[in-house]
Amino acid sequence: MPIGIKQQLGKILLALKDKKPLVHHLTNYVTVNDCANATLAIGASPIMADDIAEAGDIAAIASALVLNIGTLNSRSIDSMLSAGKRANAAGVPVVFDPVGAGASALRNSTTERILSEIKPAVIRGNISEIKFIAGIAANTKGVDASTEDTAFAQEEIITMAKDLAQKYSCIVAITGAVDIVTNGKETFLLQNGHPMLSSVTGTGCLTSSLIGSYCGATSDYLLAAAGGILTTCIAGEIAYKKAGHLGTGSFHIALIDAISKISPDHFQEYANIIIK
Amino acid sequence: MPIGIKQQLGKILLALKDKKPLVHHLTNYVTVNDCANATLAIGASPIMADDIAEAGDIAAIASALVLNIGTLNSRSIDSMLSAGKRANAAGVPVVFDPVGAGASALRNSTTERILSEIKPAVIRGNISEIKFIAGIAANTKGVDASTEDTAFAQEEIITMAKDLAQKYSCIVAITGAVDIVTNGKETFLLQNGHPMLSSVTGTGCLTSSLIGSYCGATSDYLLAAAGGILTTCIAGEIAYKKAGHLGTGSFHIALIDAISKISPDHFQEYANIIIK
Amino acid sequence: MPIGIKQQLGKILLALKDKKPLVHHLTNYVTVNDCANATLAIGASPIMADDIAEAGDIAAIASALVLNIGTLNSRSIDSMLSAGKRANAAGVPVVFDPVGAGASALRNSTTERILSEIKPAVIRGNISEIKFIAGIAANTKGVDASTEDTAFAQEEIITMAKDLAQKYSCIVAITGAVDIVTNGKETFLLQNGHPMLSSVTGTGCLTSSLIGSYCGATSDYLLAAAGGILTTCIAGEIAYKKAGHLGTGSFHIALIDAISKISPDHFQEYANIIIK
Repeated sequence: MPIGIKQQLGKILLALKDKKPLVHHLTNYVTVNDCANATLAIGASPIMADDIAEAGDIAAIASALVLNIGTLNSRSIDSMLSAGKRANAAGVPVVFDPVGAGASALRNSTTERILSEIKPAVIRGNISEIKFIAGIAANTKGVDASTEDTAFAQEEIITMAKDLAQKYSCIVAITGAVDIVTNGKETFLLQNGHPMLSSVTGTGCLTSSLIGSYCGATSDYLLAAAGGILTTCIAGEIAYKKAGHLGTGSFHIALIDAISKISPDHFQEYANIIIK
Repeated sequence: MPIGIKQQLGKILLALKDKKPLVHHLTNYVTVNDCANATLAIGASPIMADDIAEAGDIAAIASALVLNIGTLNSRSIDSMLSAGKRANAAGVPVVFDPVGAGASALRNSTTERILSEIKPAVIRGNISEIKFIAGIAANTKGVDASTEDTAFAQEEIITMAKDLAQKYSCIVAITGAVDIVTNGKETFLLQNGHPMLSSVTGTGCLTSSLIGSYCGATSDYLLAAAGGILTTCIAGEIAYKKAGHLGTGSFHIALIDAISKISPDHFQEYANIIIK
Repeated sequence: MPIGIKQQLGKILLALKDKKPLVHHLTNYVTVNDCANATLAIGASPIMADDIAEAGDIAAIASALVLNIGTLNSRSIDSMLSAGKRANAAGVPVVFDPVGAGASALRNSTTERILSEIKPAVIRGNISEIKFIAGIAANTKGVDASTEDTAFAQEEIITMAKDLAQKYSCIVAITGAVDIVTNGKETFLLQNGHPMLSSVTGTGCLTSSLIGSYCGATSDYLLAAAGGILTTCIAGEIAYKKAGHLGTGSFHIALIDAISKISPDHFQEYANIIIK
């Protein structure tokens, strides 16, 4: 068991709570409230400003920037590109959440533009989204997301993630039953979480906000990505025990509760990490 | 008591949970999170994509489309029309929720455009909204919503709903103390629900999302509309018993909880349906 | 202890619940659901309509208008100006919430435009936002918000608030550990609330919605502003006692619960008001 990693995650969490990093979001309007509340719950400070007249200015003074393409429009795409470039120029880490990549031509072309014009610190998506991006990279899948994602063996997924991480020189995180986080060389398999997390909208989005919060407190983005994902997954386990039997509404609230109470001790007690 | 209908509703619910239909929404930003969470809670899969560059593409691959005019703007109106036409062409059922029809010239003209360019499977609104639409139909009320809605006797409301359903060849659902659902010939009066449902924003909107979810699992849209409304109303009764005394916040969460736990047995135990 | 004020607040609250004023909002998409639910919880009726084709029409028939610049864009700015002017012309009170004023050039210029073109009944912000506005007034701070806000002594803050209230002939409310509400002559210091209110996004925004709700029920906007702030603060104290130990998600829900249960008795029992 990698005790050292758990201790490092605990230290980053305390640094986060001490620094209260400003985390700028250009995100979707479906789950934005949960993104803001999760960011506050972990101890960071959220801001959402998606007009091109201010998105870049605020990105430049933030500690991290989250770009989430869940509800794209032509206006917000330009703002995302503007904010991402300003963040890159200012050394502000960018977390990219390619929500629904593969599901429409607009999401596909936007994902491609963001990855060609902006350098993310972390890309976090589900297996379908990341496979779509890998398809862009290899020029083999185009915009078609029809592949049988569940047929992918874990070793293939890890290889794909590592290849992407090396191609974009960033952290790639694939969340699912087992979460995979890699910098292209070192890879963590995170085995926490609960299936009920998929019965509440936005648990992926708020995980990206949490990754952004951790990125605002450390320059080790591999650990930041792991910390954000483990926070959601451990909080999901706690929330399920407390409120899973009540229904998805109570589970949702218990999840935010648990995020607001995550401490270094939780990493020690709950985190189930395999290093590859 | 129409045991047959309750059994059919139970079967559709199980089919919904088995199929997990994709329900596309062009809806308002006030209640969109509840729409997504209610859609997940009943067992369907929500997506919200309102840019004209993708709204139609996603409508064409969805199992149902919900158009809700709660927070209109010129951009979203074009997207709604585009998505609605693509849904019609692809045989995807459209649920139209004319939020605030009668309250402004923009909502009135948009309602008129949607009904002239798109064929809905279900129109669901409150009595004021449906009366406005009936006014358009008869060219008698224009944009004025000043009529005394509560003065309408139930028989008059039923006649209006049936006329509208025949005019638009669709299901018309009027939600209120007693809900009226009709295909122009057969009419259900649904006598479930609780007044506290009106103390939480978006219970009408999420009912439209639930109707869309049921429409994604059956071609009997009369039953689908009844199923969506009964789900909210029965869940409202359960939520009131559990959390009504705590306040409107807890009632809201208990409502989502109850939607996530609705089973065919609930229709048998709770549903109070009169067939006219 | 100003028993008279508490009694007046109780009477306004009962008038609000009796009248159910329509409160129009042009607000941000992060916290809009809480704004709507808080408005319903206190007994008013929320509407959000931000397209320029209807924002003014609805402002003119509303009982109050809330302008909140939390997520500005070029489209919504024009709508805010349109709605504000129509509200002014119709004698509808305008509550202005300058979210993030001082944080970007866009917010600064928009704040300036709103205050030059629209007459608010109440301006409510935190100390940084109000100090930015005071800087505009004195032409000394420009768009720079770098001053050490916490270094301001309470007497200085009160003087600043009174000066602003006189300059704009409106109520100025500064919310924080101690809330300051003034009409330029009479000043209330409100000593309720709980620090946990800052761990949930939107408690400032929903306070502005509550102020709008009270403004819709009385022409005494000084009392309306005090009533809205005290409602949030007293509800925050009650919510903390009930759910603070559970985490920020449960506190959030308990806050809405408590707002929905606020009665004149709560003002008598809890309100801690100093008149200056």
